[in-house]
Amino acid sequence: MLGGIGGRRRRGRQRMRWLDGITGSMDGTRDYSPRQMAVREKVFDVIISCFKRHGAEVIDTPVFELKETLTGKYGEDSKLIYDLKDQGGELLSLRYDLTVPFARYLAMNKLTNIKRYHIAKVYRRDNPAMTRGRYREFYQCDFDIAGQFDPMLPDAECLKIMCEILSSLQIGDFLVKVNDRRILDGMFAICGVPDSKFRTICSSVDKLDKVSWEEVKNEMVGEKGLAPEVADRIGDYVQQHGGVSLVEQLLQDPKLSQNKQALEGLGDLKLLFEYLTLFGIADKISFDLSLARGLDYYTGVIYEAVLLQPPARAGEEPLGVGSVAAGGRYDGLVGMFDPKGRKVPCVGLSIGVERIFSIVEQRLEALEEKVRTTETQVLVASAQKKLLEERLKLISELWDAGIKAELLYKKNPKLLNQLQYCEETGIPLVAIIGEQELKDGVIKLRSVASREEVDVRREDLVEEIKRRTSQPLCIC
Amino acid sequence: MLGGIGGRRRRGRQRMRWLDGITGSMDGTRDYSPRQMAVREKVFDVIISCFKRHGAEVIDTPVFELKETLTGKYGEDSKLIYDLKDQGGELLSLRYDLTVPFARYLAMNKLTNIKRYHIAKVYRRDNPAMTRGRYREFYQCDFDIAGQFDPMLPDAECLKIMCEILSSLQIGDFLVKVNDRRILDGMFAICGVPDSKFRTICSSVDKLDKVSWEEVKNEMVGEKGLAPEVADRIGDYVQQHGGVSLVEQLLQDPKLSQNKQALEGLGDLKLLFEYLTLFGIADKISFDLSLARGLDYYTGVIYEAVLLQPPARAGEEPLGVGSVAAGGRYDGLVGMFDPKGRKVPCVGLSIGVERIFSIVEQRLEALEEKVRTTETQVLVASAQKKLLEERLKLISELWDAGIKAELLYKKNPKLLNQLQYCEETGIPLVAIIGEQELKDGVIKLRSVASREEVDVRREDLVEEIKRRTSQPLCIC
Repeated sequence: MLGGIGGRRRRGRQRMRWLDGITGSMDGTRDYSPRQMAVREKVFDVIISCFKRHGAEVIDTPVFELKETLTGKYGEDSKLIYDLKDQGGELLSLRYDLTVPFARYLAMNKLTNIKRYHIAKVYRRDNPAMTRGRYREFYQCDFDIAGQFDPMLPDAECLKIMCEILSSLQIGDFLVKVNDRRILDGMFAICGVPDSKFRTICSSVDKLDKVSWEEVKNEMVGEKGLAPEVADRIGDYVQQHGGVSLVEQLLQDPKLSQNKQALEGLGDLKLLFEYLTLFGIADKISFDLSLARGLDYYTGVIYEAVLLQPPARAGEEPLGVGSVAAGGRYDGLVGMFDPKGRKVPCVGLSIGVERIFSIVEQRLEALEEKVRTTETQVLVASAQKKLLEERLKLISELWDAGIKAELLYKKNPKLLNQLQYCEETGIPLVAIIGEQELKDGVIKLRSVASREEVDVRREDLVEEIKRRTSQPLCIC
Repeated sequence: MLGGIGGRRRRGRQRMRWLDGITGSMDGTRDYSPRQMAVREKVFDVIISCFKRHGAEVIDTPVFELKETLTGKYGEDSKLIYDLKDQGGELLSLRYDLTVPFARYLAMNKLTNIKRYHIAKVYRRDNPAMTRGRYREFYQCDFDIAGQFDPMLPDAECLKIMCEILSSLQIGDFLVKVNDRRILDGMFAICGVPDSKFRTICSSVDKLDKVSWEEVKNEMVGEKGLAPEVADRIGDYVQQHGGVSLVEQLLQDPKLSQNKQALEGLGDLKLLFEYLTLFGIADKISFDLSLARGLDYYTGVIYEAVLLQPPARAGEEPLGVGSVAAGGRYDGLVGMFDPKGRKVPCVGLSIGVERIFSIVEQRLEALEEKVRTTETQVLVASAQKKLLEERLKLISELWDAGIKAELLYKKNPKLLNQLQYCEETGIPLVAIIGEQELKDGVIKLRSVASREEVDVRREDLVEEIKRRTSQPLCIC
């Protein structure tokens, strides 16, 4: 669903390095260390449970597609597609996003409706400017609703999902900018932009989140040969943003209301705002006429979520700035893969997880929070020598009872070293075997935090460990 | 950790097709439909919870590696490596397994010990003989323990993990064949095999699970120029298998016991059996002198799990036959990536999930079990027209309370259609809004299975839904 989010995130890699001293296996890619994987899993947990809460199925597609499947879908960005070497057989390329494979999947299987999510890595031959942390391999988390439905109902749910995920990730306040391609095109038409220039002028407008209107106007007039008065008319529109009241106002706009496309788009946005109000998220939404989105395939409503209060540190480029989720409606893409050109309307969203990983890591780091990389509940330890067999017997009992347990791979480990291992790895409990305990048929259960020890009857040990470690793992 | 398991599974694709009518996106790869993903998730849940129960961390590495990282690691199979097209920058290849990237990761980050799992897709340019369901993209599930530890403790845990996973997957009885590369080499030495022929004779022995001793002997003598009497001496050994008693017996073997390597291997196996007995899995293990394993990098104990009672159907090649998990000790691989050649001993295992997916799918199908592809707890429905707003308000309340809920994307859906949707997708509950209910401040909660309906006070609805849908999802 997403143009550049995953790729556009900044400085992530430096942070990774600096956190773990892990270097990627090559420029533009990286290994995930256990610590990074722990953060990644927590973020994915939040996202996936939301997707499932909204009744999504899940699919997966191969990492490579036929080259021809990808060609002609990404405009000038096509140069960033990774091709496989021709070693005989079909020509293959690594997927560039998850949206084109999804559309190919729908057409190939003649599916007319599905609500699915897909979380997987995509690949772009970006010149890895590591100072900006662009990856050549990065995750996308896509949720899409395909099918012919009553207007704006799936679109509203996509925005609800975005807000639920961004709220529960606790990465700071955010705002979701919303616009509609039909409004943009209608606006261009009434401002006097020639049809042939719609797309290129659209991409100029898309830059308004980074540069001033003057610079954008110069590009339109200077580079793209638009008449200055035309540009000014556009300027009057694209500098406006607001809530549903702005929609109402534009519906009364003498010129815009005469344009069929714009009228459709505005009518749908009005309906969308009604639904978003019922969903309790209207206050998060801003109708922003400067939002254009890069990708060509959008045909209706488009949206992009930005963070408002980046949790940045002094002297650092705030990681939070910029887009963390985006999406929109694309009703024409599936038809491109159907022999008969049958259309399947689609709307979806994509979460910019790579940037979110960095933000969450930065936060955990700022809080100096220790991230556990295992879930081990108890270490099976011994107080004296010659108790290896007993340790193996006990840990086997615990594993078979579903307890997460470890022991040191040493015949006669010192008790101190065993306790230290728990401190280092965050294991909360130690089950200590001693000769006396064996005689008494008990195990000494020690809490690493409080250091207090109690004798537990061996047959009660599993229940006691479960009782003491039952609290759920926190999500970030 | 695993040579061919993932790739060696049979007939899976035919089954996929036939189950879902889904065709892969190209020969040798496939899309996973929601139904297949549901099975995949259940299998992964079993495997991952076992890996975590044993205290494993998790890492991830890029899908491609520098070409030079992979060259010279896979012997003649190197021809199956996928190379990326040279589009400038480093020469890259798709990973062929997860073991070499793991070793590269350890060396690059100077890690001397870690217990980690890694579940990811690997790639092989196998000529996709679809009748045998070989994939060019398939999953591997690897668990490895790296570090210098007391003998056989990590090795024993790997075998315990294998048994736990195969038991809990309920894919039928299995047996784990165990051998040791040092015993094989010692055996070759005392039988009079020239050192130069160890590896090639080893791969002949490896075929004994598929062809008779006579055929293997002919290959050794005919193709590989071994003296017949040498082959016969090998034959006397490799046709033996049994429990720890066979280990004891060979420790007394006048010739073998004179060979230092063999003696080490046998001593370690004896210790291993002690530990496996304490783990309660000795009965699953068979010391089998014919087990050789394909990969060159093994240096000590090796093992391979095979199913005994394939759950096959009449007239079908039993899917269960053959290896479903394998692994062994490889103490030299990490050193190949370390500038100073520092060694890090490793032992690990790999689960052949692709074949397991097919077996589980086959079983579910035989049981005609309906596999749910969503987890939706309740459908928010309306009994009359003009209640869309109320449905949106209610479903928003439910989502915000963490309830998995859906509604039909229709302004005025028929109640019958809403109930049918639940039947089709397995949604257990329907929350029905009607004008009377709204007046009374209640929601009609309907059980799809029993069709009984009760009025629930709106403020109690969330609790009631949680109470009724609290039973955990079954794992296969």
